[in-house]
Order: sequence, then structure tokens, then C-alpha cells
Amino acid sequence: MTAVMRSNRRRSAAYQPSGDLVPKVLAGSRPDIARLISRAEAEYAEASEALGEIYRHAGRAHIVGITGVPGGGKSTLISALIGAFSAAGSKVAVIAIDPSSPYSGGAILGDRIRMGDSAEANRAFVRSMATRGHLGGLARPTLQAVDILDAAGYSPIFIETVGVGQDEVEVVTAAHTVVVLSPPGLGDDIQAIKAGVMEIADIHAVSKADRPEAAATVAAIKGMMTLGSDVKGSSWTPPVLPLSASTGEGVADLKQAIDSHRQHLADSGELATRQRAICKHRILVAIDQLVRRRFDDGTEGLSEQLQAVVERKSDPQSAAGSLLASEKAGHGR
Amino acid sequence: MTAVMRSNRRRSAAYQPSGDLVPKVLAGSRPDIARLISRAEAEYAEASEALGEIYRHAGRAHIVGITGVPGGGKSTLISALIGAFSAAGSKVAVIAIDPSSPYSGGAILGDRIRMGDSAEANRAFVRSMATRGHLGGLARPTLQAVDILDAAGYSPIFIETVGVGQDEVEVVTAAHTVVVLSPPGLGDDIQAIKAGVMEIADIHAVSKADRPEAAATVAAIKGMMTLGSDVKGSSWTPPVLPLSASTGEGVADLKQAIDSHRQHLADSGELATRQRAICKHRILVAIDQLVRRRFDDGTEGLSEQLQAVVERKSDPQSAAGSLLASEKAGHGR
Repeated sequence: MTAVMRSNRRRSAAYQPSGDLVPKVLAGSRPDIARLISRAEAEYAEASEALGEIYRHAGRAHIVGITGVPGGGKSTLISALIGAFSAAGSKVAVIAIDPSSPYSGGAILGDRIRMGDSAEANRAFVRSMATRGHLGGLARPTLQAVDILDAAGYSPIFIETVGVGQDEVEVVTAAHTVVVLSPPGLGDDIQAIKAGVMEIADIHAVSKADRPEAAATVAAIKGMMTLGSDVKGSSWTPPVLPLSASTGEGVADLKQAIDSHRQHLADSGELATRQRAICKHRILVAIDQLVRRRFDDGTEGLSEQLQAVVERKSDPQSAAGSLLASEKAGHGR
Repeated sequence: MTAVMRSNRRRSAAYQPSGDLVPKVLAGSRPDIARLISRAEAEYAEASEALGEIYRHAGRAHIVGITGVPGGGKSTLISALIGAFSAAGSKVAVIAIDPSSPYSGGAILGDRIRMGDSAEANRAFVRSMATRGHLGGLARPTLQAVDILDAAGYSPIFIETVGVGQDEVEVVTAAHTVVVLSPPGLGDDIQAIKAGVMEIADIHAVSKADRPEAAATVAAIKGMMTLGSDVKGSSWTPPVLPLSASTGEGVADLKQAIDSHRQHLADSGELATRQRAICKHRILVAIDQLVRRRFDDGTEGLSEQLQAVVERKSDPQSAAGSLLASEKAGHGR
């Protein structure tokens, strides 16, 4: 306990130990949920025990990833989904990932601006989180935020990722159900395939269904699916749903598809397989980050090894091997 | 040496040891360059010593990241740049990162199709590489491919990333000069800022300059820059260049801006700072991957810890801590 206390430098008189927040989070207190998420995001050492406890209380929520290219209408769609799930009695949460600058670390509030009205009307919990240059867009703090909301009784929990690329691949490892949203007629075929997110979809949604090109995009996605079917080794066939978040067309169908996919996962036994894969991934991410922090926080050998690599007297692999070996021989944590 | 040999399961009679490829790579032999890149990509243990040697011979190339949203015209632009730099006597290489599926691992050949003519005419070396679900889009094999091309005398080496998000942030850590390509009038302002790649640019390019919206996009980027200037702590002011790869307008200016930025880095001393940051990043990536592979390849403790996490009797952080501690106490490599 003293080691834990020591590693937390500044603390105001009113600071509540994170352990004291846990029962309040489990009881659903919104300010305490927000507080604990902030501590996870800031990576307070003091909070790590509490977050471990939270994890052990989590595991009931349906975690839904929503992804697609920028400008596809994800935020508008999530507003509509908040409404639909809230109307059905669910306690909805949203975590929006902002790909922030590695320099400023700032997150953009666009999502909150857009989702604000629906979220407030429905008492949904909406949170933007920055990725801050972590390797992998959905690093530990995001996963811990999901745990916190899960333990507090929120379900479904939507994770919205911005962009196309590694973040989208990463979302698969954290979500039970992945919705890929495509705007109609964006780019040509090669670009659409290159986007590389087609295969990760459990459900396809095509936004702006009122536009004339939407039907062609639905057909194109269906066509691509017949080429690369069953990549996930699942017996589920991803539906392709046109929708217009502004008119509300298709939102009920999408809600139903999300619910059906959850049911399918439970009935087929795939849920257990996915949970296991998610756990494995999280342990590996945690190991990565523990090691990274140790070395990043200034293990002595690092600066010598770094200098040798800079001068091309050594190379990154050899330096990494030497540092791990000395770590193993050495002083521990 | 025997340990290295042992870890390589199948080898044909004609297999050349990677160490034998090194002098051929240094002499610029294209088939041997391609061969060694393939071995880096497949993560052959046998190649690691040779790749370390290659690293020590590298360090002269100008590494240029080219990034931006899909459909912005990156491949067309790179074709034009291959032509411009080749005409000036440079030996140009391109590595195109494909965000591939975590399932199939397949890379799409769109880039090669598009760049093919220009690359072939100019004897440029063009290579597509898959990211294959690595954490971080520009993981070790990509960086090693850059080393190989660098040691073989290629410069500039372009790294093209597809998509918007973590990959783009990652590109900064590997490149000396980052070019962000924006198509005119894509999405609204919030989306443009959200793309989050504005701050990483050393040079902005706006494609399709023949379109009427291009001037407004140039003005918008300049406007955004005055808001968030000097985030990189550099005395360099990123130029904003309209260009049309199809008509060739602006390509010469872009080439000159890339050359000027390199000169600026050398003159200001920023080059040494960036090289150091790149080296540090690479050591940390190498450590991450060494640890990950050890645990992923089936350290005994992992399956027990995994089961405990699946059953929520433990949590990922605690499991990671225990596994690292046992690793430290234990049997080593």
C-alpha cells in the first residue's frame, strides 16, 4: 500500500482513494464513474488496484464497436442508437475514440457536440477518450473505461472509432459485435477494399440511404461478402442494412440486428471464444505497457543502448534483447 | 548460431543464409533486397542477425511519410514523385502499408497497380507490406524494410500509409519528413480536425487543385495552422501546396519542399533529435514484440492466468504483472 501511495505525487485534501469509488461506481453513480475513468485515462498508479476490482465485477455488458471512414455519419448514427436502445429500457454508454496528436494530446469534442442532445435526453453516458499515441488505438485506458461502465450496469456499450486502419482492426479485439458504417459511393472499388475493414464487420450499415447511390453501395458490399465469406469462422451472415439516421429509416432494423448478433453469439458458443480472445489480448497489452513504462521511465541501461543505436554501433533488436536480459537479471520493479 | 538455426523449421536446398544476402543488398541487388524484405516480413529468426548488420549500414536515406484519407490520391501523387526524384538522379523506393485484415493477412495490390508504370519506367523499388494486426501500423518489419532499402542506397524512401488514425500518428515516429495529402472539400470542419493528422504535417499538399473547392481547402488548412502553430517545437513553417498529380501542377514544388525540409532538418540540428526519437521508438517496439512473442508462443503460466482472467478471478493487469515476475525469476529465453 505504501508503494502505491508513494507513486502518486500530488493529491488534494479532498482526494478520494480510488478504492472508495468502487462501491459508488457499482451503484451507478455518474460523477464517480467519470472520476474513475479520468484516473484510468491519466494512468494513476493509485487507481490500478481499484480498476482490477472493477474488472472482476464486469463482464455482463454487450460491447459494440462502430467504425467506418470519417464523414460517414457515425456520430449521428450513435445518437439514433442511443434513442432506440434507451427506449427499449437499456442503460446506454458510448466511448468515442479521438485519434489525437502525439504532441498536444488534445481530444476534439465534435462527437460530444453531435451526440449531446440525444445523450442528455436519454441519460446515456458519453465519453470521449484520446488515444494519445499509444500503440494501438484502443489501449488500456479505453478497455478499463469499458470495464467501469460495464460494472456500473451499462449495456450496450458502444465504442466509436474514427478513421480507417489500425484502430478498426483493434476494435475487433475488444468488441462482441462490430458494426461497419459505409457512406454511399465513397471512392472507387480498390479504395473500398483497401479500407480493410470489410472483413471485421458483423453488421454492415450504409448511411444516407436516401441518396440514390446507396442501393449500389449495399449491392457492392454484398458482392464483396460473397468473395471473402466466413473469414471469422462464424456461422453468422453479416446483414447489410441501409439507413438514414436523419429520417430514422433503418435504425430499428440495426438495433434488432445488434440484438440478434448477441443472441447468436450466446447460442453458438462463440461468445465464450470471443471473451477468451479479448482477455488474451488484454493481458498482452498490459504486458506491453508494463515493460514499455519501465524502460520509458528511465532504466539506466536504456540511454547507453540508445546512444549505440543512434550511432549505428548496435541495432534496435540487439538493444532490446540486451535490455530485457539485464532487466531479467536485475533489480525487478 | 545453433539456436538461430534450430528456430528455422523448413529450408529448401537452395536457401541462401540471410548473412550471405547482406553484401548483395549493400551492392544494390534488387532480387536480394526483395528476398531480405520478405524474410523481415515473415519474421524469420534466421534473418535477425543479418537485419542487425543491415541496420548498422543504414542511416543515410531521407525517409518521407505520405499520409491522408483514402481516396485523396496518394498513389497517384507518389507516381509523380517517383518521376520527379528519379529525373533528378535519385534512387527512389516506396513502401506502401496496407491495413490488412487480422484474419486473412492479405494485402491489396491497388497501389502496385497504380504506381506500376512510373515505378517500372524509373527503376524505383516499390513494395506493399501488410500490417497484419500488429499493434501500431508501422511495426518492425516495415522499419526493417526501410533499413534494407536505406543500406542499399535508396533515397528518398517514401512510406505511404492508408487511412486516418493511429497509422498516421505512427508514421511521424519513423519519418524525417511527413507529407499530409488532403483532397479538396472532404467532409466538414469537425471531420477535418478530427482526422487528427493536421499537426503531424511538415508539408501539406492539397490534391485535385483543378477543382474549384481546392483553393478553399488550402485556405482552411492555413487557417488551422495559425491556431495550432509550432506544436512540433520546430522553426519550420509547413507550406500548403495545391497540386494536381494528373496535370503535374505543383509536383515540382512539392519535390522542392521535401528537399528544403531535409536541408532545414540538417541545418537546424533537428535531424539528430528526430533520429534519436526514431531509435528510441524502435527499441521500445522491439522490446514490446520480444515480450509479446515469448508469451504468445506459450509460456506455461499464460494459460492459467488467462483462465483466471476469463473467469474474472483475476484481471489483465494483475495477470501481466505475475507473468512478468515469473518470467524474470525463470528460465529466460
